[in-house]
Amino acid sequence: MSGLFVAFEGGDGCGKSTQARRVAAARGAHFTYEPGDSPLGADLRRWLLDASAPMSPETEALLMLADRSHHVRSVIEPLRAAGTHVVSDRFAASTLAYQGYGRGVDLADLRAATELAIGTCAPDLTILLDVAPEVANARREPDRRDRFESQDPGFHDRVRQGYLEMAAGDDRWIVVEASGDLEAVSRAVDHVLDSLAWT
Amino acid sequence: MSGLFVAFEGGDGCGKSTQARRVAAARGAHFTYEPGDSPLGADLRRWLLDASAPMSPETEALLMLADRSHHVRSVIEPLRAAGTHVVSDRFAASTLAYQGYGRGVDLADLRAATELAIGTCAPDLTILLDVAPEVANARREPDRRDRFESQDPGFHDRVRQGYLEMAAGDDRWIVVEASGDLEAVSRAVDHVLDSLAWT
Repeated sequence: MSGLFVAFEGGDGCGKSTQARRVAAARGAHFTYEPGDSPLGADLRRWLLDASAPMSPETEALLMLADRSHHVRSVIEPLRAAGTHVVSDRFAASTLAYQGYGRGVDLADLRAATELAIGTCAPDLTILLDVAPEVANARREPDRRDRFESQDPGFHDRVRQGYLEMAAGDDRWIVVEASGDLEAVSRAVDHVLDSLAWT
Repeated sequence: MSGLFVAFEGGDGCGKSTQARRVAAARGAHFTYEPGDSPLGADLRRWLLDASAPMSPETEALLMLADRSHHVRSVIEPLRAAGTHVVSDRFAASTLAYQGYGRGVDLADLRAATELAIGTCAPDLTILLDVAPEVANARREPDRRDRFESQDPGFHDRVRQGYLEMAAGDDRWIVVEASGDLEAVSRAVDHVLDSLAWT
């Protein structure tokens, strides 16, 4: 049987990397992430996160999608086909939230380009870790900010609203309130996964 | 006044790099090329041309579009805005011809993703150097074939038919028969450009 695919989404500082790694380790799944979890992706990630390399929002989006396309075909799909569960820190919704809602890139064109990138590969479940803006902002370290973390609060608000809009229209999404401490968020995430009978 | 933008297109071995360089030098235009004519692009080009790096047609297309998006914004548009004419070895039609017609990537999605990549930037003139398949094949050196040159003849036929289809539907395209020798092709190209009063 094909492996399950769970994606964690959310703004910077929401704790999704921590949760995705924890869940994968606890449930025998393969942890992966975007952008960058392939040799090509690692090269793209360097450009994407470098706040000193000027790049248009459209270029940013297309690089993210190129990375995702390669990630789907070289990592996610082969694992699922072999029956391995996959937990990813970010997937397709990140590009819609960040470059679409956040930076204003045309959403219809982005969705068409996303189709190219992912084909029929979609998460069985997307867990959105939603954090109050002031909490997320406090969690982002001012001295370690990449191209995205260094954006103004308005950007992060638009990203958050975009995520909430996507989650509201799709029953394969679950929103977890993630402003609390690590233990509280972990309990809430485990509760969601247990209710899916994924052990 | 904004600089003119002329793109040379065609299959591998059609002579467009030679013509694009020659025309740019003779008419005081800036020569550029895709993929790769930027620091980010050079990195992408290495991946794109490496026949030993497995990559899906969709990933290939998205990397080409990311490169083009950056090329438009960091090279082509600034030059045109400064009044400099630009001659490019390949532009948007290459991705439709190679990844769309040649490899079968969905053309509607590719066109939407191309919109993301180029915005309103379009060549004033695209010159398609069309070469009889047997001539083009003989021109490709068997010991120096990259990811595209190493494809079978059926691929190159589909690319050629795609180019001819795009040229037939657009009066900003001119097809130049390019199976002859360098001097004959150069004369035909110059004739086209002279008739546009571009000196």
